[in-house]
Amino acid sequence: LYEFTFKLDESSKEPLYLQLYKFIKNEIESKNFIVGSKLPSVRNMATFLGLSRTTIEKAYHLLMVEGYVDSKPRSGLFITSIQEPLLSSLQKQRPSFKEKVLKETVNYDFRYGSLNFDKSFVSKWRKSSNESLDLFKNDILTYGDSKGEIRLRIQIAQYLKLSRGVSCQPDQIILGAGTQYLLSQICQMLLKEGDSIAMEEPGYDGARAVFQNHHLNIVPIQLDQDGINTKKLKKFNGNLVYLTPSHQFPYGMVLPIKKRLELLKWAAESNRLIIEDDYDGELRYHGKTIPSLQGLDQHGKVIYIGTFSKALLPSIRISYMVLPEHLLEVYQQKFELYDSSVSKIHQFTLFRLMRDGYWERHLRKIRTVYKRKHNELLSTIKMIMGDKVQILGKDAGLHIIIKVNGRSEEELIQSANSHGIKIYPTSKY
Amino acid sequence: LYEFTFKLDESSKEPLYLQLYKFIKNEIESKNFIVGSKLPSVRNMATFLGLSRTTIEKAYHLLMVEGYVDSKPRSGLFITSIQEPLLSSLQKQRPSFKEKVLKETVNYDFRYGSLNFDKSFVSKWRKSSNESLDLFKNDILTYGDSKGEIRLRIQIAQYLKLSRGVSCQPDQIILGAGTQYLLSQICQMLLKEGDSIAMEEPGYDGARAVFQNHHLNIVPIQLDQDGINTKKLKKFNGNLVYLTPSHQFPYGMVLPIKKRLELLKWAAESNRLIIEDDYDGELRYHGKTIPSLQGLDQHGKVIYIGTFSKALLPSIRISYMVLPEHLLEVYQQKFELYDSSVSKIHQFTLFRLMRDGYWERHLRKIRTVYKRKHNELLSTIKMIMGDKVQILGKDAGLHIIIKVNGRSEEELIQSANSHGIKIYPTSKY
Repeated sequence: LYEFTFKLDESSKEPLYLQLYKFIKNEIESKNFIVGSKLPSVRNMATFLGLSRTTIEKAYHLLMVEGYVDSKPRSGLFITSIQEPLLSSLQKQRPSFKEKVLKETVNYDFRYGSLNFDKSFVSKWRKSSNESLDLFKNDILTYGDSKGEIRLRIQIAQYLKLSRGVSCQPDQIILGAGTQYLLSQICQMLLKEGDSIAMEEPGYDGARAVFQNHHLNIVPIQLDQDGINTKKLKKFNGNLVYLTPSHQFPYGMVLPIKKRLELLKWAAESNRLIIEDDYDGELRYHGKTIPSLQGLDQHGKVIYIGTFSKALLPSIRISYMVLPEHLLEVYQQKFELYDSSVSKIHQFTLFRLMRDGYWERHLRKIRTVYKRKHNELLSTIKMIMGDKVQILGKDAGLHIIIKVNGRSEEELIQSANSHGIKIYPTSKY
Repeated sequence: LYEFTFKLDESSKEPLYLQLYKFIKNEIESKNFIVGSKLPSVRNMATFLGLSRTTIEKAYHLLMVEGYVDSKPRSGLFITSIQEPLLSSLQKQRPSFKEKVLKETVNYDFRYGSLNFDKSFVSKWRKSSNESLDLFKNDILTYGDSKGEIRLRIQIAQYLKLSRGVSCQPDQIILGAGTQYLLSQICQMLLKEGDSIAMEEPGYDGARAVFQNHHLNIVPIQLDQDGINTKKLKKFNGNLVYLTPSHQFPYGMVLPIKKRLELLKWAAESNRLIIEDDYDGELRYHGKTIPSLQGLDQHGKVIYIGTFSKALLPSIRISYMVLPEHLLEVYQQKFELYDSSVSKIHQFTLFRLMRDGYWERHLRKIRTVYKRKHNELLSTIKMIMGDKVQILGKDAGLHIIIKVNGRSEEELIQSANSHGIKIYPTSKY
């Protein structure tokens, strides 16, 4: 048994769990703990030190995140064999993001894009993944179809037709490890350095970064109350526009059908292409679903992009784009020698979940949960704050925007923060 | 019970399994089979039709590959609900790659980069993956560190130091969904349209495609018997060189230490950067391992790229690059808003396998297997063909090159093909 003495400095401003974390970390780095040995259980440690279980849990979690200990299921936490010089130099270089977040002691984090956790989901995914490994054990030894596995693309085509009105053949679908990967492919297909691309202002900063990295000239187009200002867009003289019509990012408005038709007419007449980023099109709570631009388009002027990051899991990295037929040849020319960027194991897993109807059931389930949460949030805000605030983007998606008269963004964030509440700015978009 | 009549055309040149496949496919498309119904077992079908089990198996496999049926573990094959118009139009557009391959009836396929299958491997991966899903069930709901999970990068840094002599901090490691993804990031970091990049000729066509898509001016540098011609390289006036020094692709020679030092000296003196693609550096069978360029470099002139595609699994899409410290800031500027392109679930899985020593054991195991196969192949070729052929690149990796005097590549491929043997050309590189 390992014996140690740990003195808390109760006068210190540093939270107890951080003091405990640092102490254990130090013990590990000084090799006072033997690699592979087990940490006392949370309960035992709490009793031993006379601290709350939450404090111990927080300290242990931090040790785990930083890789000092690792958990083995049903047996506890064990000291890992991390080489001390590697880690300590890393620690010096920069505190990890998670450490920084924890230090702020946030009680309520309103981080946009956070997902709701469905207990049955992980076991479903695991089961399908295990079956896929079994069934396709030879297939996982190869790179696979560079556009994505055909059986998954067939499922996606069916889903898109029924759920988003997107009309396409599986051949037009290309899978990629995230929307940014696909945007980069589009840039490489269609644009050269210095070419112009238009996007909403404010708009998705992750897309803007891709366009910047391809040295494009980004033309910001202002928003009206109901989405992009079409008059201003029509003055744009480049060939490509990037839009989030179903749920404008970050403001959240839904582009009305009239503007959609207007945009498509413009694109057809002046031979422009529109990238439609439908990042959370599945999550709509009020009013009728408006069909995707792609579904309304008659002239092959829309590149549709969707993702499984919002409604399923961001960590599997599966997004897809639907190319108009006339671009398939260019795509082939540019990317036929590329390997797929998406895990084939995950592709098989997702294929089976979609084929067996689980994806549809999952969508229905999370739509209900998110809608309830969304309504709860809206009614609470209205009840407490009444007319003092204006709520934007309240029909869809995973976030809302609040406009407060007479107070700056910074002020509001500070004020919330002092109450242990974390909210996020729009200014960076 | 479903009754059907199937007449084989034994006079047809078409193999029996293809005839059977087409018949069942037709039945499914004409809706004579009910969706969800079970196909007769291989054994029953073989008895019923008086054909060999192999024939039935091949036909069933093709039906599965094409998505007409799907397998449920321990119960059999079931007709899937693929929308008929989707599928048939797809079929018309182009036969799938697998179908084409199967039609050629290849008995021995010498496809380079094919992996050896270790039965225990899938179960190890599955176990680790299940444990990761369990342990990290909250982590998989977020995007994660854009450079890759730190705990995995710590493991990779340790591994690279011990196994490839690469010296780096985990902070310098960036994970990406394949080498091509990382090469594209390097292009975006360091080059603009029209800039020059040098590469070996012949060289890896997948890298060339990336450079072309970034509109770079590709400068081919000839090879000597022992790798790149350094005299010619020194005349190159661009800033970036892409090399495969540990196992030249496709020729397979290993760049000797003298040339490595010469290259590094040149890079340091004239302020050039070298991309070292060490795609199968783990697989070396003869002679002493030569340290990586990165490990020999004193001046931060090497970007090292490695992958888990060759020695572990191509289907998980995990590659990594090691940036010199002076490039970390540029990387941060360009890509801080990017989400990681690699599955976090796979990252956790791999982290656990590496931490628990399984990756090292796996490497030792496959090195032994591949070495035995490699030697067997070499000695057979020498025994049968003697002096008529010359073998290149015989010290490392997953492929060898054979040079046959007086016969063209095309002739050789044709001749092998007529004996049911598939070999691959080098001309496309």
